[in-house]
Amino acid sequence: MVITCSQYELLKGLNIVSKAVPTRTSNPILECILIDASTNDIRLTTNDMEIGIETVIPGGINERGRVAIDAKIFVDIVRNLPNNQVTITTDDKQMTQISCEKALFAVPGKNGDDFPYIPVIPRNVPIEISQFTLRETIRQTIFSTKENDKNQIMGGELFEVNGDHMRVSSLDGHRISIRNIHLQNSYEDRKVIVPAKTLKEISNIIGSSYDDIVSIYITDNHIIFEFDMTTVVSRLMDGEFFQVDKMLSNDYETKVMINRKELIESIRRSMLMVNESDKKPIVLDIYEQTFNMSVSTFKGNFDESLNIIKDGRDIKIAFNPKFLYEALNAIDDENATIYLLTPRSPLFIRDDAGSYIYLILPVNFNGA
Amino acid sequence: MVITCSQYELLKGLNIVSKAVPTRTSNPILECILIDASTNDIRLTTNDMEIGIETVIPGGINERGRVAIDAKIFVDIVRNLPNNQVTITTDDKQMTQISCEKALFAVPGKNGDDFPYIPVIPRNVPIEISQFTLRETIRQTIFSTKENDKNQIMGGELFEVNGDHMRVSSLDGHRISIRNIHLQNSYEDRKVIVPAKTLKEISNIIGSSYDDIVSIYITDNHIIFEFDMTTVVSRLMDGEFFQVDKMLSNDYETKVMINRKELIESIRRSMLMVNESDKKPIVLDIYEQTFNMSVSTFKGNFDESLNIIKDGRDIKIAFNPKFLYEALNAIDDENATIYLLTPRSPLFIRDDAGSYIYLILPVNFNGA
Repeated sequence: MVITCSQYELLKGLNIVSKAVPTRTSNPILECILIDASTNDIRLTTNDMEIGIETVIPGGINERGRVAIDAKIFVDIVRNLPNNQVTITTDDKQMTQISCEKALFAVPGKNGDDFPYIPVIPRNVPIEISQFTLRETIRQTIFSTKENDKNQIMGGELFEVNGDHMRVSSLDGHRISIRNIHLQNSYEDRKVIVPAKTLKEISNIIGSSYDDIVSIYITDNHIIFEFDMTTVVSRLMDGEFFQVDKMLSNDYETKVMINRKELIESIRRSMLMVNESDKKPIVLDIYEQTFNMSVSTFKGNFDESLNIIKDGRDIKIAFNPKFLYEALNAIDDENATIYLLTPRSPLFIRDDAGSYIYLILPVNFNGA
Repeated sequence: MVITCSQYELLKGLNIVSKAVPTRTSNPILECILIDASTNDIRLTTNDMEIGIETVIPGGINERGRVAIDAKIFVDIVRNLPNNQVTITTDDKQMTQISCEKALFAVPGKNGDDFPYIPVIPRNVPIEISQFTLRETIRQTIFSTKENDKNQIMGGELFEVNGDHMRVSSLDGHRISIRNIHLQNSYEDRKVIVPAKTLKEISNIIGSSYDDIVSIYITDNHIIFEFDMTTVVSRLMDGEFFQVDKMLSNDYETKVMINRKELIESIRRSMLMVNESDKKPIVLDIYEQTFNMSVSTFKGNFDESLNIIKDGRDIKIAFNPKFLYEALNAIDDENATIYLLTPRSPLFIRDDAGSYIYLILPVNFNGA
């Protein structure tokens, strides 16, 4: 194999596919990046057997072939080359020369034929969504998934398509995050669970433009994201997702409108007094037009009150401050609207347009 | 004690004094920052018993007093307060309230009288040097000190003052770094060894302006750096420094002039093939007007040649590439001049003006 390409484009491609290189594996070839120039494209591929990523980079093929190169060494080398034309040459023993200007590296490669190819999946009609929207939707829901849990389903997000509407839900046993997205076109109904790990990697790779589109193909066992010159293929998760709708409710006794940024700042301060391990809650005392937060731990005490617009009853209720912080951080509105029922009922943060719902369960506290 | 000050100035002061808070200590009060408002200033102090730092912050004292507060909690709290007026109040049980706008923290403090004061040292005539020059001199020599070594002296730098000239030297058994600085005034001759740790902290605190001055006071056992509103007091190291002059030589058989940035880039690439643990050297093959670098390890091979202006003999010699990299990185000149004698003699990088000398010992290699 002999190919040439620009250092910039090669590095860009390597940074994309690197996301699916496993950190630990019993199969050393998975620690490699496959360069496949056996057809008309230069294609970089990685595969951790859960997610496969493939990207095509511009360049010239002087001699067709393929080779797999250790991802870490390959990326390190290309990152340190000058921004100029790079030539990659492989001999029949897979020894691979990488040269740029006067610098010449030679590293041992592996036979590209041994690399586990990404499954070829028949494409149907794709769901189209902007890269910006997909990226934001992931950011706004991913924090309430729970990886490495006994209950594996919590390590995924439910994607539901109904006509021109998509709903994305995640939950971790303490809270639920829901985002509703309006689609440009109408599609056949679907309901799949996508691993959180896949979504995290996707949001690290896709751009943040409204104008650039991601095409999403869903089959029985796989989900495929296509954008720019990149394809990400992931397994779907088996099983039934939780019946989220049964956990939602529109009943409330107290409705609070509060400046979101001020509240985030206050909650961040309250968290300074809490140790991750001792899980002391922050107590909210909502009375008249005041939103008081307090927490008392062995580290010290914190107290702060914000002005609010309140409808309904006074209430005193306690939460893990991190859950409030993450939900508030996932919305963009200037003011947040919070709905409360009783000290033992979940808190809801939702907007009138119905584009998001965040549910958080309260914790017990020994005030009253 | 009741004091008020701006969050910005308080945080600035805390960031300065934090540098002398020990990470591990058997004396918990050393993990605190002392606020001393018992006279007319608000003074923040830390002391790890090697280095003491004191800084004065602007503010008002409503009630005199002093208190010691856990450094980590204190800095975390102040960093998360709004940029506004902060009030700090201590009661007779050392409970300390920190308030800003509507946020109120209360944390347990310690009796300020128990805090180990920084020794009061009689001041003589200070050596004056710009903050920029001191900071640069430290950066340009600190990398060849050796902390936590059996030979403790390698964990310090030799400061020698002769009239209007200061020389700073460091060495670690493999290399020597020397910087010569011209001073504005003439001073009495002195020769002291300053701990590398002190110098690292100083260079993290001082500014980078030519116009701002550091006053350096040297006594028998201490060195004091005074700048802006801050004083750093450090112990000096006991013992005799190495006789650096005996290790220097102006003899050479090969003189190389080379583009410094190009050489740095090439050496950085060569380092990609070297593991810290196996210590494979980079081989320099200097012939005609060519500077060839190569290295061969289990990771792969690297080869690159640069054009040079060379006087004298061809030579083949090997080095730890990291040592070449750090020395070249410590100088600012566009071109570096390298002097070589034999494959077993040290390499020198020095300028004609005599402002720096970097000596690096070669390593054996099985070429020739």
